[in-house]
Amino acid sequence: TPFQEEKIPELLRKHARLELQMRNDIYSTYHLYPPPELSEIKTTVVYPATEKHLRKYLRQEVHLVRETWEDYRNITLPFIQSQSFSLQWVYNILEKKAEADRIIHENPDPRDGFVLVPDFKWNQSQLDDLYLIALVHRRDVKSLRDLTGEHLPLLRNILREGQEAVAERFGVPGSRLRVYLHYQPSYYHLHVHFTALGYEAAGSAAERAHLLADVLDNLALDSRYYQRRALTCALRADEPLLAKFREAGRL
Amino acid sequence: TPFQEEKIPELLRKHARLELQMRNDIYSTYHLYPPPELSEIKTTVVYPATEKHLRKYLRQEVHLVRETWEDYRNITLPFIQSQSFSLQWVYNILEKKAEADRIIHENPDPRDGFVLVPDFKWNQSQLDDLYLIALVHRRDVKSLRDLTGEHLPLLRNILREGQEAVAERFGVPGSRLRVYLHYQPSYYHLHVHFTALGYEAAGSAAERAHLLADVLDNLALDSRYYQRRALTCALRADEPLLAKFREAGRL
Repeated sequence: TPFQEEKIPELLRKHARLELQMRNDIYSTYHLYPPPELSEIKTTVVYPATEKHLRKYLRQEVHLVRETWEDYRNITLPFIQSQSFSLQWVYNILEKKAEADRIIHENPDPRDGFVLVPDFKWNQSQLDDLYLIALVHRRDVKSLRDLTGEHLPLLRNILREGQEAVAERFGVPGSRLRVYLHYQPSYYHLHVHFTALGYEAAGSAAERAHLLADVLDNLALDSRYYQRRALTCALRADEPLLAKFREAGRL
Repeated sequence: TPFQEEKIPELLRKHARLELQMRNDIYSTYHLYPPPELSEIKTTVVYPATEKHLRKYLRQEVHLVRETWEDYRNITLPFIQSQSFSLQWVYNILEKKAEADRIIHENPDPRDGFVLVPDFKWNQSQLDDLYLIALVHRRDVKSLRDLTGEHLPLLRNILREGQEAVAERFGVPGSRLRVYLHYQPSYYHLHVHFTALGYEAAGSAAERAHLLADVLDNLALDSRYYQRRALTCALRADEPLLAKFREAGRL
């Protein structure tokens, strides 16, 4: 439960117990023991709870794996190809068979074009958790790993036109947007995330998010950058891909 | 401050005041008022504090700036040099004049060595928000921007020895640690953050955090990588550096 601002003066005024922990130069740390009325905890009780309830609240451990290009070719790519996770919902959007009324912007070029739509997670009622997704029209780019200098025009279009469309429609300027790709992505059709900078969306941390501006610069410096560099993958303990890395002795 | 697991039975056993808020089927919510000894708050005091310290803790709109190497040389570097934000607390740690008993690991080499200490923000009572900082012994490296292939041995030491020390002391393996640098950092003496992967520490998002493993790979591919590439800076609206970029027409 976060602090409520109006309670802080009370917290400072009351004679709560204070224990010094550490002092260095102008910095010191204390343990503060506030009275019960200032330590309210929001408590949810589920009773009786099923196994499914328990699992929902259990934390899934995440592990980092450092995937070299060889790992990608020998472990990740065969795994992706063996899965048949449907991309039909993506194609429905690209072909206007679904969500056509939700499209915020489209560049129709089959090679360098894309469609920008609000993410499912965003209800569009407030800008604090603004979340949009750019889906590319071409269907032969699975992820960051496939990108080369050839894709620079496509990626530049997404960054420039996407920022312009969000500024125009929602009034949020490019300097207040986090524009990034996930690696690993949750589906293997190239897409780019646009989120409000102040919104710490799950998956915006450095172990998974790659800023599109950085991707552009890396590809401009070295067209084969993403076929040379090892990339970190954050994998949940129950993900099959983690088991593949373990089998290959890479964990 | 997160809950400590071993305190939960105490919290449930003690007769803390409990107020029912809502009941629906098997779900109910309560306000719980725990006794002071179970409501410890970790408190940091900075006294006397400068304007800059105050600003650091105020909530502020953040803007992204794309800093090229020329921007760094013409705007950022002169700004850093004009500031005289004291690094005395860092030197106190390196010279064992403060926090000597808190050192988790040290490699004493003056060029390739470092000291690993718990961050102020971590109370060391639970691993959920584990947070340590590696401070390098050498004093001539301000930030990511200064790093070249020359620093690879130092950076490799930090990654390997840091992970080993955390595994040994706290039982957290390297695959469960986020090891990264900030750009911009909050102080210009090279340091590396070690946080629990499950802990979404402020500053772990892609616009500010650079994984040390990525930094190592980039420098191995190109010794001058961080003198070539533009880097994103997330700057709060009231930061003087943002004003400098604005004055230079870079925003």
